Amino acid sequence: MDYFVARRRVEFSATDMAQIVHFANFYKWMEETEHAYFRSLGLSIMQKQPDGTYIGWPRVNATCHFHAPVRYDDELEIRLRVERIGFKSLTYYVEFFRDGNRLAYGRMKSACCICRPDGTLTSIEIPQEIRDKIHEMPVP
Amino acid sequence: MDYFVARRRVEFSATDMAQIVHFANFYKWMEETEHAYFRSLGLSIMQKQPDGTYIGWPRVNATCHFHAPVRYDDELEIRLRVERIGFKSLTYYVEFFRDGNRLAYGRMKSACCICRPDGTLTSIEIPQEIRDKIHEMPVP
Amino acid sequence: MDYFVARRRVEFSATDMAQIVHFANFYKWMEETEHAYFRSLGLSIMQKQPDGTYIGWPRVNATCHFHAPVRYDDELEIRLRVERIGFKSLTYYVEFFRDGNRLAYGRMKSACCICRPDGTLTSIEIPQEIRDKIHEMPVP
Amino acid sequence: MDYFVARRRVEFSATDMAQIVHFANFYKWMEETEHAYFRSLGLSIMQKQPDGTYIGWPRVNATCHFHAPVRYDDELEIRLRVERIGFKSLTYYVEFFRDGNRLAYGRMKSACCICRPDGTLTSIEIPQEIRDKIHEMPVP
Repeated sequence: MDYFVARRRVEFSATDMAQIVHFANFYKWMEETEHAYFRSLGLSIMQKQPDGTYIGWPRVNATCHFHAPVRYDDELEIRLRVERIGFKSLTYYVEFFRDGNRLAYGRMKSACCICRPDGTLTSIEIPQEIRDKIHEMPVP
Repeated sequence: MDYFVARRRVEFSATDMAQIVHFANFYKWMEETEHAYFRSLGLSIMQKQPDGTYIGWPRVNATCHFHAPVRYDDELEIRLRVERIGFKSLTYYVEFFRDGNRLAYGRMKSACCICRPDGTLTSIEIPQEIRDKIHEMPVP
Repeated sequence: MDYFVARRRVEFSATDMAQIVHFANFYKWMEETEHAYFRSLGLSIMQKQPDGTYIGWPRVNATCHFHAPVRYDDELEIRLRVERIGFKSLTYYVEFFRDGNRLAYGRMKSACCICRPDGTLTSIEIPQEIRDKIHEMPVP
Repeated sequence: MDYFVARRRVEFSATDMAQIVHFANFYKWMEETEHAYFRSLGLSIMQKQPDGTYIGWPRVNATCHFHAPVRYDDELEIRLRVERIGFKSLTYYVEFFRDGNRLAYGRMKSACCICRPDGTLTSIEIPQEIRDKIHEMPVP
Protein backbone atom coordinates (compact mmCIF):
# COMPACT_ATOMS: atom_id res chain seq x y z
CA MET A 1 0.00 0.00 0.00
CA ASP A 2 1.41 3.38 -0.99
CA TYR A 3 -0.81 5.18 1.47
CA PHE A 4 -4.10 4.85 3.32
CA VAL A 5 -6.92 7.09 2.10
CA ALA A 6 -9.86 8.55 3.99
CA ARG A 7 -12.41 10.93 2.54
CA ARG A 8 -14.52 13.45 4.32
CA ARG A 9 -16.78 16.37 3.60
CA VAL A 10 -16.15 19.53 5.61
CA GLU A 11 -18.99 20.13 8.04
CA PHE A 12 -20.32 23.61 8.78
CA SER A 13 -19.27 23.51 12.43
CA ALA A 14 -15.61 23.22 11.37
CA THR A 15 -15.63 26.73 9.89
CA ASP A 16 -14.89 30.01 11.66
CA MET A 17 -15.80 33.63 11.01
CA ALA A 18 -12.97 33.96 8.47
CA GLN A 19 -15.22 31.60 6.42
CA ILE A 20 -12.54 28.89 6.34
CA VAL A 21 -11.94 25.74 8.35
CA HIS A 22 -10.60 26.47 11.82
CA PHE A 23 -7.07 25.03 11.92
CA ALA A 24 -7.62 22.87 15.02
CA ASN A 25 -9.86 20.62 12.90
CA PHE A 26 -6.92 19.43 10.80
CA TYR A 27 -5.45 17.77 13.89
CA LYS A 28 -8.76 16.04 14.60
CA TRP A 29 -8.88 14.85 10.98
CA MET A 30 -5.31 13.53 11.18
CA GLU A 31 -6.41 11.57 14.21
CA GLU A 32 -9.59 10.29 12.58
CA THR A 33 -7.55 9.10 9.61
CA GLU A 34 -5.18 7.27 11.98
CA HIS A 35 -8.20 5.64 13.58
CA ALA A 36 -9.71 4.66 10.23
CA TYR A 37 -6.34 3.16 9.28
CA PHE A 38 -6.25 1.08 12.48
CA ARG A 39 -9.84 0.00 11.84
CA SER A 40 -8.91 -1.08 8.30
CA LEU A 41 -6.32 -3.40 9.88
CA GLY A 42 -8.79 -4.91 12.32
CA LEU A 43 -7.27 -2.91 15.17
CA SER A 44 -8.65 -0.25 17.52
CA ILE A 45 -6.80 2.73 18.93
CA MET A 46 -8.50 1.99 22.25
CA GLN A 47 -8.01 -1.77 22.47
CA LYS A 48 -9.55 -3.22 25.61
CA GLN A 49 -7.35 -5.77 27.38
CA PRO A 50 -8.62 -8.69 29.47
CA ASP A 51 -7.47 -6.92 32.66
CA GLY A 52 -9.66 -3.86 32.03
CA THR A 53 -6.86 -1.61 30.80
CA TYR A 54 -6.68 -0.24 27.27
CA ILE A 55 -3.84 -0.08 24.81
CA GLY A 56 -4.10 3.49 23.54
CA TRP A 57 -2.07 5.92 21.45
CA PRO A 58 -1.76 9.38 22.99
CA ARG A 59 0.09 12.05 21.01
CA VAL A 60 3.78 12.80 21.44
CA ASN A 61 3.64 15.67 18.97
CA ALA A 62 1.72 16.85 15.96
CA THR A 63 2.44 19.49 13.37
CA CYS A 64 0.51 20.78 10.39
CA HIS A 65 1.30 23.18 7.54
CA PHE A 66 -1.52 25.03 5.80
CA HIS A 67 -1.15 26.00 2.14
CA ALA A 68 -4.62 27.03 1.08
CA PRO A 69 -7.96 27.61 2.78
CA VAL A 70 -10.44 24.77 3.11
CA ARG A 71 -14.14 25.63 3.13
CA TYR A 72 -17.56 24.30 4.07
CA ASP A 73 -18.73 21.36 1.97
CA ASP A 74 -15.28 20.76 0.44
CA GLU A 75 -14.61 17.09 -0.21
CA LEU A 76 -11.20 16.19 1.13
CA GLU A 77 -9.00 13.23 0.34
CA ILE A 78 -6.72 12.54 3.27
CA ARG A 79 -3.66 10.39 2.64
CA LEU A 80 -1.88 8.80 5.58
CA ARG A 81 1.49 7.10 5.54
CA VAL A 82 3.23 5.33 8.41
CA GLU A 83 6.50 7.16 8.12
CA ARG A 84 8.31 5.39 10.94
CA ILE A 85 7.64 2.44 13.21
CA GLY A 86 9.61 2.98 16.41
CA PHE A 87 9.91 0.71 19.43
CA LYS A 88 7.24 2.54 21.33
CA SER A 89 5.72 4.94 18.82
CA LEU A 90 4.38 5.44 15.31
CA THR A 91 4.98 8.52 13.18
CA TYR A 92 2.45 9.37 10.49
CA TYR A 93 2.73 11.65 7.51
CA VAL A 94 -0.65 13.02 6.47
CA GLU A 95 -1.70 15.07 3.44
CA PHE A 96 -4.98 16.82 2.65
CA PHE A 97 -6.10 17.12 -0.98
CA ARG A 98 -9.08 18.67 -2.75
CA ASP A 99 -9.49 17.98 -6.46
CA GLY A 100 -5.91 16.78 -6.63
CA ASN A 101 -4.43 19.89 -5.01
CA ARG A 102 -2.59 19.53 -1.73
CA LEU A 103 -4.00 22.02 0.77
CA ALA A 104 -2.19 20.97 3.94
CA TYR A 105 0.14 18.34 5.30
CA GLY A 106 1.47 17.33 8.67
CA ARG A 107 3.09 14.76 10.90
CA MET A 108 1.82 13.12 14.05
CA LYS A 109 3.70 10.89 16.49
CA SER A 110 1.66 8.59 18.73
CA ALA A 111 3.05 6.62 21.68
CA CYS A 112 1.83 3.14 22.47
CA CYS A 113 0.56 3.24 26.05
CA ILE A 114 -1.28 1.27 28.66
CA CYS A 115 -4.26 3.41 29.71
CA ARG A 116 -5.47 2.33 33.14
CA PRO A 117 -8.97 2.77 34.53
CA ASP A 118 -7.61 5.29 37.05
CA GLY A 119 -6.45 7.51 34.19
CA THR A 120 -2.72 6.81 34.44
CA LEU A 121 -0.72 6.10 31.27
CA THR A 122 2.50 4.14 30.80
CA SER A 123 4.48 4.00 27.57
CA ILE A 124 5.10 0.44 26.34
CA GLU A 125 6.74 -1.28 23.38
CA ILE A 126 4.36 -1.79 20.50
CA PRO A 127 2.93 -5.31 20.95
CA GLN A 128 4.03 -7.78 18.28
CA GLU A 129 0.49 -8.53 17.11
CA ILE A 130 0.02 -4.86 16.28
CA ARG A 131 3.51 -4.50 14.80
CA ASP A 132 2.82 -7.44 12.48
CA LYS A 133 -0.02 -5.58 10.81
CA ILE A 134 1.68 -2.23 10.24
CA HIS A 135 4.19 -1.39 7.52
CA GLU A 136 6.17 1.74 6.79
CA MET A 137 5.13 3.56 3.62
CA PRO A 138 7.76 5.69 1.86
CA VAL A 139 7.12 9.43 2.12
CA PRO A 140 7.70 11.17 -1.23
CA MET B 1 -28.37 33.63 46.21
CA ASP B 2 -30.67 34.71 43.39
CA TYR B 3 -28.48 33.08 40.76
CA PHE B 4 -24.92 32.00 40.13
CA VAL B 5 -22.96 34.11 37.64
CA ALA B 6 -20.13 33.16 35.32
CA ARG B 7 -18.52 35.44 32.79
CA ARG B 8 -16.74 34.52 29.63
CA ARG B 9 -15.37 36.15 26.52
CA VAL B 10 -16.31 34.49 23.24
CA GLU B 11 -13.28 32.84 21.66
CA PHE B 12 -12.64 32.91 17.91
CA SER B 13 -12.92 29.13 17.56
CA ALA B 14 -16.55 29.30 18.75
CA THR B 15 -17.61 31.20 15.61
CA ASP B 16 -18.70 29.77 12.28
CA MET B 17 -18.80 31.08 8.72
CA ALA B 18 -22.05 32.93 9.41
CA GLN B 19 -19.78 35.11 11.61
CA ILE B 20 -21.72 34.23 14.75
CA VAL B 21 -21.22 31.72 17.56
CA HIS B 22 -21.99 28.17 16.48
CA PHE B 23 -25.00 27.09 18.53
CA ALA B 24 -23.37 23.94 19.96
CA ASN B 25 -21.15 26.19 22.07
CA PHE B 26 -24.08 27.37 24.18
CA TYR B 27 -24.52 23.83 25.50
CA LYS B 28 -20.84 23.68 26.42
CA TRP B 29 -21.16 27.02 28.19
CA MET B 30 -24.22 25.85 30.10
CA GLU B 31 -22.14 22.91 31.23
CA GLU B 32 -19.13 25.03 32.15
CA THR B 33 -21.38 27.26 34.23
CA GLU B 34 -22.78 24.22 36.02
CA HIS B 35 -19.20 23.12 36.72
CA ALA B 36 -18.19 26.57 37.98
CA TYR B 37 -21.23 26.52 40.25
CA PHE B 38 -20.23 23.16 41.71
CA ARG B 39 -16.69 24.44 42.16
CA SER B 40 -18.03 27.49 44.02
CA LEU B 41 -19.64 25.07 46.49
CA GLY B 42 -16.47 23.08 47.02
CA LEU B 43 -17.85 20.25 44.87
CA SER B 44 -16.70 18.67 41.62
CA ILE B 45 -18.84 17.27 38.83
CA MET B 46 -16.42 14.35 38.63
CA GLN B 47 -15.99 13.52 42.30
CA LYS B 48 -13.58 10.66 42.83
CA GLN B 49 -14.72 8.11 45.41
CA PRO B 50 -12.45 5.98 47.63
CA ASP B 51 -13.34 2.90 45.54
CA GLY B 52 -12.07 4.41 42.27
CA THR B 53 -15.49 5.27 40.88
CA TYR B 54 -16.68 8.80 40.23
CA ILE B 55 -19.90 10.55 41.06
CA GLY B 56 -20.71 12.31 37.80
CA TRP B 57 -23.60 14.19 36.22
CA PRO B 58 -24.39 13.10 32.67
CA ARG B 59 -27.13 14.96 30.82
CA VAL B 60 -30.74 13.80 30.71
CA ASN B 61 -31.74 16.60 28.36
CA ALA B 62 -30.76 20.11 27.39
CA THR B 63 -32.55 22.80 25.45
CA CYS B 64 -31.56 26.28 24.38
CA HIS B 65 -33.42 29.16 22.72
CA PHE B 66 -31.48 31.73 20.71
CA HIS B 67 -32.78 35.31 20.49
CA ALA B 68 -29.88 37.25 19.01
CA PRO B 69 -26.50 36.44 17.49
CA VAL B 70 -23.42 36.31 19.70
CA ARG B 71 -20.09 37.24 18.17
CA TYR B 72 -16.34 36.92 18.62
CA ASP B 73 -14.97 38.81 21.62
CA ASP B 74 -18.40 39.43 23.12
CA GLU B 75 -18.35 39.43 26.91
CA LEU B 76 -21.13 37.23 28.20
CA GLU B 77 -22.71 37.10 31.63
CA ILE B 78 -24.17 33.66 32.21
CA ARG B 79 -26.72 33.29 34.99
CA LEU B 80 -27.50 29.85 36.33
CA ARG B 81 -30.32 28.89 38.63
CA VAL B 82 -31.03 25.49 40.16
CA GLU B 83 -34.64 25.28 39.09
CA ARG B 84 -35.42 21.92 40.64
CA ILE B 85 -33.66 19.48 42.94
CA GLY B 86 -35.03 16.01 42.24
CA PHE B 87 -34.24 12.72 43.92
CA LYS B 88 -31.73 11.75 41.31
CA SER B 89 -31.31 14.83 39.14
CA LEU B 90 -30.83 18.58 39.04
CA THR B 91 -32.51 20.91 36.56
CA TYR B 92 -30.80 24.19 35.74
CA TYR B 93 -32.17 27.31 34.13
CA VAL B 94 -29.45 29.28 32.35
CA GLU B 95 -29.51 32.70 30.70
CA PHE B 96 -26.92 34.45 28.52
CA PHE B 97 -26.61 38.23 28.66
CA ARG B 98 -24.47 40.83 26.90
CA ASP B 99 -24.63 44.40 28.17
CA GLY B 100 -27.81 43.58 30.05
CA ASN B 101 -29.62 42.13 27.03
CA ARG B 102 -30.67 38.50 27.13
CA LEU B 103 -29.40 36.73 24.02
CA ALA B 104 -30.26 33.12 24.82
CA TYR B 105 -31.64 30.93 27.57
CA GLY B 106 -32.05 27.25 28.20
CA ARG B 107 -32.56 24.38 30.58
CA MET B 108 -30.38 21.41 31.36
CA LYS B 109 -31.20 18.34 33.44
CA SER B 110 -28.28 16.33 34.87
CA ALA B 111 -28.59 12.92 36.49
CA CYS B 112 -26.47 11.96 39.48
CA CYS B 113 -24.60 8.80 38.50
CA ILE B 114 -21.89 6.44 39.58
CA CYS B 115 -19.33 6.41 36.74
CA ARG B 116 -17.30 3.21 36.94
CA PRO B 117 -13.76 2.74 35.60
CA ASP B 118 -15.14 0.34 32.97
CA GLY B 119 -17.30 3.13 31.57
CA THR B 120 -20.65 1.94 32.91
CA LEU B 121 -23.01 4.42 34.54
CA THR B 122 -25.74 3.92 37.13
CA SER B 123 -28.22 6.55 38.23
CA ILE B 124 -28.24 7.14 42.01
CA GLU B 125 -29.98 9.38 44.52
CA ILE B 126 -28.15 12.63 45.07
CA PRO B 127 -25.90 12.05 48.11
CA GLN B 128 -26.90 14.03 51.19
CA GLU B 129 -23.58 15.86 51.44
CA ILE B 130 -24.14 17.27 47.95
CA ARG B 131 -27.82 17.95 48.54
CA ASP B 132 -26.95 19.94 51.66
CA LYS B 133 -24.99 22.46 49.62
CA ILE B 134 -27.48 23.06 46.83
CA HIS B 135 -30.57 25.21 46.98
CA GLU B 136 -33.33 25.90 44.50
CA MET B 137 -33.37 29.44 43.11
CA PRO B 138 -36.71 30.83 41.87
CA VAL B 139 -36.90 31.23 38.10
CA PRO B 140 -38.47 34.56 37.12
CA MET C 1 -40.14 9.59 2.31
CA ASP C 2 -40.83 8.58 5.89
CA TYR C 3 -37.58 10.12 7.12
CA PHE C 4 -34.13 11.05 5.94
CA VAL C 5 -31.30 8.86 7.20
CA ALA C 6 -27.66 9.69 7.86
CA ARG C 7 -25.11 7.32 9.31
CA ARG C 8 -21.99 8.13 11.22
CA ARG C 9 -19.36 6.44 13.29
CA VAL C 10 -18.52 8.11 16.61
CA GLU C 11 -15.05 9.62 16.51
CA PHE C 12 -12.69 9.49 19.48
CA SER C 13 -12.62 13.27 19.90
CA ALA C 14 -16.38 13.25 20.60
CA THR C 15 -15.86 11.36 23.87
CA ASP C 16 -15.16 12.80 27.31
CA MET C 17 -13.56 11.47 30.48
CA ALA C 18 -16.81 9.73 31.48
CA GLN C 19 -15.98 7.50 28.47
CA ILE C 20 -19.17 8.49 26.65
CA VAL C 21 -19.97 11.00 23.94
CA HIS C 22 -20.01 14.56 25.20
CA PHE C 23 -23.59 15.77 24.85
CA ALA C 24 -22.74 18.87 22.79
CA ASN C 25 -21.90 16.56 19.89
CA PHE C 26 -25.51 15.50 19.47
CA TYR C 27 -26.43 19.06 18.49
CA LYS C 28 -23.64 19.09 15.91
CA TRP C 29 -24.90 15.77 14.55
CA MET C 30 -28.46 17.08 14.34
CA GLU C 31 -27.09 19.96 12.31
CA GLU C 32 -24.96 17.73 10.08
CA THR C 33 -28.01 15.61 9.36
CA GLU C 34 -30.01 18.72 8.44
CA HIS C 35 -27.17 19.68 6.08
CA ALA C 36 -27.02 16.22 4.52
CA TYR C 37 -30.77 16.39 4.01
CA PHE C 38 -30.48 19.74 2.23
CA ARG C 39 -27.63 18.34 0.11
CA SER C 40 -29.82 15.35 -0.82
CA LEU C 41 -32.36 17.85 -2.22
CA GLY C 42 -29.76 19.74 -4.24
CA LEU C 43 -29.83 22.59 -1.72
CA SER C 44 -27.20 24.12 0.55
CA ILE C 45 -27.69 25.55 4.01
CA MET C 46 -25.36 28.39 2.97
CA GLN C 47 -26.72 29.22 -0.46
CA LYS C 48 -24.80 32.01 -2.12
CA GLN C 49 -26.98 34.62 -3.85
CA PRO C 50 -25.99 36.68 -6.89
CA ASP C 51 -25.64 39.78 -4.68
CA GLY C 52 -22.97 38.19 -2.43
CA THR C 53 -25.32 37.46 0.47
CA TYR C 54 -26.16 33.95 1.64
CA ILE C 55 -29.44 32.33 2.50
CA GLY C 56 -28.64 30.56 5.77
CA TRP C 57 -30.49 28.78 8.56
CA PRO C 58 -29.40 29.85 12.04
CA ARG C 59 -30.98 28.09 15.00
CA VAL C 60 -34.04 29.37 16.84
CA ASN C 61 -33.86 26.59 19.40
CA ALA C 62 -32.66 23.04 19.82
CA THR C 63 -33.39 20.40 22.39
CA CYS C 64 -32.13 16.87 22.90
CA HIS C 65 -33.05 14.03 25.27
CA PHE C 66 -30.47 11.38 26.12
CA HIS C 67 -31.62 7.85 26.97
CA ALA C 68 -28.45 5.80 26.87
CA PRO C 69 -24.73 6.46 26.56
CA VAL C 70 -23.11 6.52 23.14
CA ARG C 71 -19.49 5.45 22.88
CA TYR C 72 -16.41 5.62 20.68
CA ASP C 73 -16.72 3.71 17.41
CA ASP C 74 -20.47 3.23 17.75
CA GLU C 75 -22.25 3.28 14.42
CA LEU C 76 -25.25 5.57 14.61
CA GLU C 77 -28.27 5.80 12.37
CA ILE C 78 -29.71 9.29 12.54
CA ARG C 79 -33.27 9.78 11.34
CA LEU C 80 -34.48 13.26 10.49
CA ARG C 81 -38.04 14.34 9.84
CA VAL C 82 -39.27 17.78 8.83
CA GLU C 83 -41.89 18.12 11.51
CA ARG C 84 -43.21 21.51 10.48
CA ILE C 85 -42.69 23.91 7.60
CA GLY C 86 -43.45 27.40 8.84
CA PHE C 87 -43.47 30.69 6.95
CA LYS C 88 -39.97 31.56 8.04
CA SER C 89 -38.65 28.44 9.74
CA LEU C 90 -38.31 24.68 9.63
CA THR C 91 -38.66 22.38 12.63
CA TYR C 92 -36.89 19.03 12.57
CA TYR C 93 -37.42 15.94 14.66
CA VAL C 94 -34.25 13.86 14.93
CA GLU C 95 -33.63 10.41 16.43
CA PHE C 96 -30.37 8.57 17.12
CA PHE C 97 -30.30 4.78 16.86
CA ARG C 98 -27.67 2.09 17.39
CA ASP C 99 -28.56 -1.45 16.39
CA GLY C 100 -32.22 -0.52 16.28
CA ASN C 101 -32.29 0.99 19.77
CA ARG C 102 -33.12 4.64 20.15
CA LEU C 103 -30.44 6.35 22.25
CA ALA C 104 -31.45 9.98 21.94
CA TYR C 105 -33.91 12.26 20.18
CA GLY C 106 -34.44 15.96 19.78
CA ARG C 107 -35.94 18.86 17.92
CA MET C 108 -34.30 21.77 16.16
CA LYS C 109 -35.90 24.87 14.70
CA SER C 110 -33.99 26.78 12.04
CA ALA C 111 -34.93 30.22 10.73
CA CYS C 112 -34.49 31.13 7.08
CA CYS C 113 -32.27 34.22 7.01
CA ILE C 114 -30.33 36.50 4.72
CA CYS C 115 -26.73 36.42 5.96
CA ARG C 116 -24.90 39.54 4.75
CA PRO C 117 -21.15 39.86 4.23
CA ASP C 118 -20.99 42.27 7.18
CA GLY C 119 -22.31 39.55 9.49
CA THR C 120 -25.85 40.88 9.92
CA LEU C 121 -28.80 38.50 9.65
CA THR C 122 -32.43 39.14 8.72
CA SER C 123 -35.21 36.60 8.97
CA ILE C 124 -37.08 36.04 5.67
CA GLU C 125 -39.90 33.89 4.35
CA ILE C 126 -38.69 30.58 3.00
CA PRO C 127 -38.17 31.11 -0.76
CA GLN C 128 -40.61 29.18 -2.93
CA GLU C 129 -37.87 27.23 -4.76
CA ILE C 130 -36.72 25.82 -1.41
CA ARG C 131 -40.28 25.27 -0.15
CA ASP C 132 -41.09 23.28 -3.29
CA LYS C 133 -38.46 20.68 -2.42
CA ILE C 134 -39.30 20.15 1.24
CA HIS C 135 -42.18 18.10 2.62
CA GLU C 136 -43.40 17.50 6.14
CA MET C 137 -42.90 13.94 7.40
CA PRO C 138 -45.25 12.66 10.12
CA VAL C 139 -43.62 12.24 13.51
CA PRO C 140 -44.65 8.97 15.15
CA MET D 1 8.24 41.75 28.76
CA ASP D 2 9.80 38.29 28.97
CA TYR D 3 6.60 36.61 27.91
CA PHE D 4 2.86 37.07 27.89
CA VAL D 5 0.88 34.94 30.34
CA ALA D 6 -2.64 33.59 30.11
CA ARG D 7 -4.27 31.30 32.63
CA ARG D 8 -7.07 28.87 32.10
CA ARG D 9 -8.80 26.04 33.86
CA VAL D 10 -9.32 22.87 31.83
CA GLU D 11 -13.01 22.39 31.06
CA PHE D 12 -14.66 18.98 31.08
CA SER D 13 -15.50 19.08 27.37
CA ALA D 14 -11.77 19.23 26.55
CA THR D 15 -11.21 15.70 27.89
CA ASP D 16 -11.53 12.42 26.02
CA MET D 17 -12.15 8.82 27.05
CA ALA D 18 -8.46 8.36 27.92
CA GLN D 19 -9.34 10.78 30.78
CA ILE D 20 -6.87 13.38 29.53
CA VAL D 21 -7.20 16.54 27.44
CA HIS D 22 -7.73 15.79 23.77
CA PHE D 23 -4.64 17.11 21.97
CA ALA D 24 -6.54 19.31 19.50
CA ASN D 25 -7.38 21.61 22.42
CA PHE D 26 -3.76 22.68 22.82
CA TYR D 27 -3.90 24.31 19.39
CA LYS D 28 -7.07 26.16 20.36
CA TRP D 29 -5.38 27.32 23.56
CA MET D 30 -2.32 28.52 21.67
CA GLU D 31 -4.68 30.55 19.52
CA GLU D 32 -6.63 31.91 22.47
CA THR D 33 -3.37 33.01 24.07
CA GLU D 34 -2.36 34.79 20.84
CA HIS D 35 -5.74 36.53 20.88
CA ALA D 36 -5.40 37.53 24.53
CA TYR D 37 -1.93 38.90 23.74
CA PHE D 38 -3.33 41.00 20.88
CA ARG D 39 -6.12 42.20 23.16
CA SER D 40 -3.55 43.20 25.80
CA LEU D 41 -1.95 45.47 23.15
CA GLY D 42 -5.26 47.07 22.21
CA LEU D 43 -5.35 45.05 18.97
CA SER D 44 -7.78 42.48 17.61
CA ILE D 45 -6.98 39.45 15.49
CA MET D 46 -10.05 40.28 13.39
CA GLN D 47 -9.59 44.02 12.93
CA LYS D 48 -12.40 45.54 10.92
CA GLN D 49 -11.24 48.05 8.29
CA PRO D 50 -13.25 51.05 7.04
CA ASP D 51 -13.85 49.25 3.71
CA GLY D 52 -15.57 46.26 5.34
CA THR D 53 -12.61 43.91 5.09
CA TYR D 54 -10.80 42.50 8.11
CA ILE D 55 -7.12 42.20 8.90
CA GLY D 56 -6.86 38.63 10.15
CA TRP D 57 -4.16 36.11 11.02
CA PRO D 58 -4.76 32.64 9.57
CA ARG D 59 -2.29 29.89 10.44
CA VAL D 60 0.71 29.02 8.29
CA ASN D 61 1.66 26.14 10.53
CA ALA D 62 1.42 24.98 14.12
CA THR D 63 3.20 22.30 16.06
CA CYS D 64 2.88 21.06 19.63
CA HIS D 65 4.86 18.61 21.77
CA PHE D 66 3.17 16.85 24.66
CA HIS D 67 5.22 15.82 27.68
CA ALA D 68 2.65 14.91 30.30
CA PRO D 69 -1.11 14.47 30.42
CA VAL D 70 -3.33 17.40 31.31
CA ARG D 71 -6.61 16.68 33.07
CA TYR D 72 -10.00 18.15 33.89
CA ASP D 73 -9.90 21.10 36.26
CA ASP D 74 -6.12 21.56 35.95
CA GLU D 75 -5.08 25.18 36.17
CA LEU D 76 -2.71 25.98 33.32
CA GLU D 77 -0.31 28.85 32.94
CA ILE D 78 0.30 29.49 29.26
CA ARG D 79 3.37 31.52 28.32
CA LEU D 80 3.55 33.07 24.87
CA ARG D 81 6.59 34.64 23.26
CA VAL D 82 6.78 36.37 19.89
CA GLU D 83 9.73 34.43 18.58
CA ARG D 84 10.01 36.17 15.24
CA ILE D 85 8.42 39.16 13.54
CA GLY D 86 8.58 38.58 9.78
CA PHE D 87 7.49 40.88 6.98
CA LYS D 88 4.17 39.15 6.62
CA SER D 89 3.95 36.78 9.57
CA LEU D 90 4.45 36.30 13.29
CA THR D 91 5.89 33.18 14.88
CA TYR D 92 4.94 32.38 18.46
CA TYR D 93 6.55 30.07 20.97
CA VAL D 94 4.05 28.81 23.54
CA GLU D 95 4.52 26.77 26.72
CA PHE D 96 1.96 25.14 29.01
CA PHE D 97 2.72 24.84 32.72
CA ARG D 98 0.91 23.37 35.73
CA ASP D 99 2.37 24.05 39.16
CA GLY D 100 5.65 25.13 37.58
CA ASN D 101 6.02 21.97 35.48
CA ARG D 102 6.08 22.30 31.71
CA LEU D 103 3.54 19.88 30.21
CA ALA D 104 3.63 20.89 26.56
CA TYR D 105 5.10 23.47 24.22
CA GLY D 106 4.70 24.45 20.60
CA ARG D 107 5.12 26.99 17.86
CA MET D 108 2.55 28.70 15.69
CA LYS D 109 3.10 30.89 12.64
CA SER D 110 0.31 33.28 11.65
CA ALA D 111 0.18 35.22 8.38
CA CYS D 112 -1.15 38.76 8.25
CA CYS D 113 -3.98 38.74 5.71
CA ILE D 114 -6.79 40.81 4.31
CA CYS D 115 -9.98 38.79 4.84
CA ARG D 116 -12.65 39.95 2.40
CA PRO D 117 -16.41 39.66 2.90
CA ASP D 118 -16.53 37.12 0.04
CA GLY D 119 -14.22 34.82 2.02
CA THR D 120 -11.05 35.38 -0.01
CA LEU D 121 -7.75 35.99 1.79
CA THR D 122 -4.61 37.80 0.63
CA SER D 123 -1.33 37.85 2.51
CA ILE D 124 -0.06 41.38 3.27
CA GLU D 125 2.87 43.01 5.05
CA ILE D 126 2.19 43.56 8.72
CA PRO D 127 0.84 47.14 8.98
CA GLN D 128 3.20 49.54 10.75
CA GLU D 129 0.68 50.42 13.49
CA ILE D 130 0.56 46.75 14.47
CA ARG D 131 4.29 46.25 14.08
CA ASP D 132 4.92 49.19 16.42
CA LYS D 133 3.18 47.42 19.28
CA ILE D 134 4.82 44.01 18.98
CA HIS D 135 8.28 43.05 20.15
CA GLU D 136 10.26 39.86 19.85
CA MET D 137 10.83 38.03 23.16
CA PRO D 138 13.92 35.79 23.45
CA VAL D 139 13.08 32.10 23.57
CA PRO D 140 15.11 30.27 26.21
